[in-house]
Amino acid sequence: MINYDSFLSRAAEKMQESAIRRMGTVLAQSRDIISFAPGYPAPDTFPWAEFTEISRELLTGADGSVLQYGPTRGFKPLLGAVAGIMAARGVTTAIESLLVTTGSQQGLDLVARVLLDPGDVVLVELPTYTGAITAFRNVQARMVGVRQESDGIDLDALDDTCTRLTKEGARVRVLYLVPNFQNPTGLLIGLSKRRHLLEWADRRNVLIVEDDPYRELYFEDSATESDVRPIKADDRQGRVIYLSSFSKTLAPGYRIAWIDAPAAIASKLEMAKQAEDLCSGALDQRVIYEACRRGVLDRQLPMLRRHYQAKRDVMVEALKQAFGKEVTWPDPRGGFFLWATLPEELDADAMIERAVEHGVIYVAGSAFFIEDGGRNIIRLAFSAPSHDKIREGVARLAAAVHEERTVSGGLTR
Amino acid sequence: MINYDSFLSRAAEKMQESAIRRMGTVLAQSRDIISFAPGYPAPDTFPWAEFTEISRELLTGADGSVLQYGPTRGFKPLLGAVAGIMAARGVTTAIESLLVTTGSQQGLDLVARVLLDPGDVVLVELPTYTGAITAFRNVQARMVGVRQESDGIDLDALDDTCTRLTKEGARVRVLYLVPNFQNPTGLLIGLSKRRHLLEWADRRNVLIVEDDPYRELYFEDSATESDVRPIKADDRQGRVIYLSSFSKTLAPGYRIAWIDAPAAIASKLEMAKQAEDLCSGALDQRVIYEACRRGVLDRQLPMLRRHYQAKRDVMVEALKQAFGKEVTWPDPRGGFFLWATLPEELDADAMIERAVEHGVIYVAGSAFFIEDGGRNIIRLAFSAPSHDKIREGVARLAAAVHEERTVSGGLTR
Repeated sequence: MINYDSFLSRAAEKMQESAIRRMGTVLAQSRDIISFAPGYPAPDTFPWAEFTEISRELLTGADGSVLQYGPTRGFKPLLGAVAGIMAARGVTTAIESLLVTTGSQQGLDLVARVLLDPGDVVLVELPTYTGAITAFRNVQARMVGVRQESDGIDLDALDDTCTRLTKEGARVRVLYLVPNFQNPTGLLIGLSKRRHLLEWADRRNVLIVEDDPYRELYFEDSATESDVRPIKADDRQGRVIYLSSFSKTLAPGYRIAWIDAPAAIASKLEMAKQAEDLCSGALDQRVIYEACRRGVLDRQLPMLRRHYQAKRDVMVEALKQAFGKEVTWPDPRGGFFLWATLPEELDADAMIERAVEHGVIYVAGSAFFIEDGGRNIIRLAFSAPSHDKIREGVARLAAAVHEERTVSGGLTR
Repeated sequence: MINYDSFLSRAAEKMQESAIRRMGTVLAQSRDIISFAPGYPAPDTFPWAEFTEISRELLTGADGSVLQYGPTRGFKPLLGAVAGIMAARGVTTAIESLLVTTGSQQGLDLVARVLLDPGDVVLVELPTYTGAITAFRNVQARMVGVRQESDGIDLDALDDTCTRLTKEGARVRVLYLVPNFQNPTGLLIGLSKRRHLLEWADRRNVLIVEDDPYRELYFEDSATESDVRPIKADDRQGRVIYLSSFSKTLAPGYRIAWIDAPAAIASKLEMAKQAEDLCSGALDQRVIYEACRRGVLDRQLPMLRRHYQAKRDVMVEALKQAFGKEVTWPDPRGGFFLWATLPEELDADAMIERAVEHGVIYVAGSAFFIEDGGRNIIRLAFSAPSHDKIREGVARLAAAVHEERTVSGGLTR
């Protein structure tokens, strides 16, 4: 019998299954479960008819490159379309700064590999996106969390943390931020704070990785397009590596996202991507390009904002009814997630089995922390389920919480 | 001005652009160039009509998961189909051992990340596939090459190299092989040598990474299915991590390949993939699955063997006519490549500009060596161009070679 453990790299020894992906597996195994776990967009919002027609045209056209290997940087017209999207977001960019990635997850992984050696420090918001934690962990970087306020990361805590780490001799390389409708909290970084972050990064000689998948999904009752202005839009020094994606606005099954980085970094990201997958899917890139060119994406956005805002309303209403003031959360002004704090005595990880028994799943808050934290918090994705399922799921959650409190109250207190 | 060099990881400092991909860029910039450079399959062989119909059915069906995020391991029915393909190749496997990857390039990258720490030794055939060199280099592994004979890697040299490295205190972890119609040489490892390699790996406690994208493309005038039996088919100990792909048999634009590895390794590869791209394209996987299920793949294979064999014939004939005995090569018995040794005084890297002027490109042999080597060798991919283009391309190549010899003979000798 071969002992495979002895063959694993140090990185592989520490690799862990993502809690979100694990919930995806639970979900795939059971039909009746209502999922608030993975942040899936709602498939009924995808422009199926347009995708069908675009695919048919591409596959019956005379262009063989539609299914061929393509350039690592990406399909050139798509890069042009992305430059247009960036311009609309207030960021002037050049093709040399852009790279198509196989989902933003690949973007995070490439950034981690190109910028971080084992032991290098990445500062992250606390809590932060698990997929980023995984990417940073896999290059053996050291993540250090900084607490958030209602308008995003706490600047004083950020600076204090940096001072402390620098004194310890640590190399602080990167600050990772999800400024718009953060995963998992749903928080938005305030505009003046965004500018202060740029000044801070300059002063501290740190690069900012700005991960922005949700910005188009602002809810018009409480946010505007000016609230989601990219940090990169005011980046005069070239401090910001910006990531965004079509997964939440067109469809994640196509795995098409992008990075906008200083050209010198983009060129290294391209080399890292060559080794990771040569190129992103050729047909996928054409379909996404055509969806941009034909105005499909632009037509989707207002509809998606209304769609997800309505689902947030349903979830907030259901939570209020089911829990009164026992459960609290910051009201999401956009995006897919609601970050709900349960009564103090509950342990969201321990409660997951009971939730599954009741037919509902969530992601336990601990998944979004580097070390301990989030014990009695859960991330609820309201994006995919229908209104009825959201109501029913919250009722199931309430039943699970009630039962858990009775048991834990009776047994342990 | 920010000095981005100071932000690069050690891995990124050493990253280089692949010579093959660079040729792809040259190709994209000029219309009249005949390319023998990247190993592109011939788009006119792709089953376009079947892909069109399958895509239409999938996109107009009621299943929203067609464009959703999916499990990291891959679309379950596709994993089942892959198990069937493995069985047909003589390998009994379980779903727990399989992982869908975003092209075999991702497979190589995942294997490198999961098995290799900086400085660990990977033994490779010399010459070897550039994409593997890139993946191993990006984890800072140390590659050591072993020469090949006409029936593949030299076993004595392999063992001597291993002895020498072990004495030096190096950790020899992995032997990387492309046993069937190797990229770049087109060589085939003999059957008895395959069994000896397994014994050797057991004795030396090394894992074999068997990269097998070309096996279905054996040419029936000089090879049979029994000649391409996977090393893994006789692997009783669990020494072999096997990679294969649909890129050469269906279409590379879908970016769908797979790994068959011991379950303990497969589980780590899955975690590495979670961080790299969450999952491969959902629609791509469905299309490939349907192409398997509906018999499209099985119907393609005999046609593809004939198609590429005929192209090899055309290239071999054209080379003989153009060069007589000045240029030599091992006759390809399958696959996409011909590995041609030019007259001694030529430098294939230096000659590339002249070749481009004449309207033809190749990959210089040096790209397939770890250190020096292959100076007067070129890799010619005969897979994509038409018969006429192959003839014309070889004529252009001959003109470039003739001119280069005249110049180098006149000026430097």
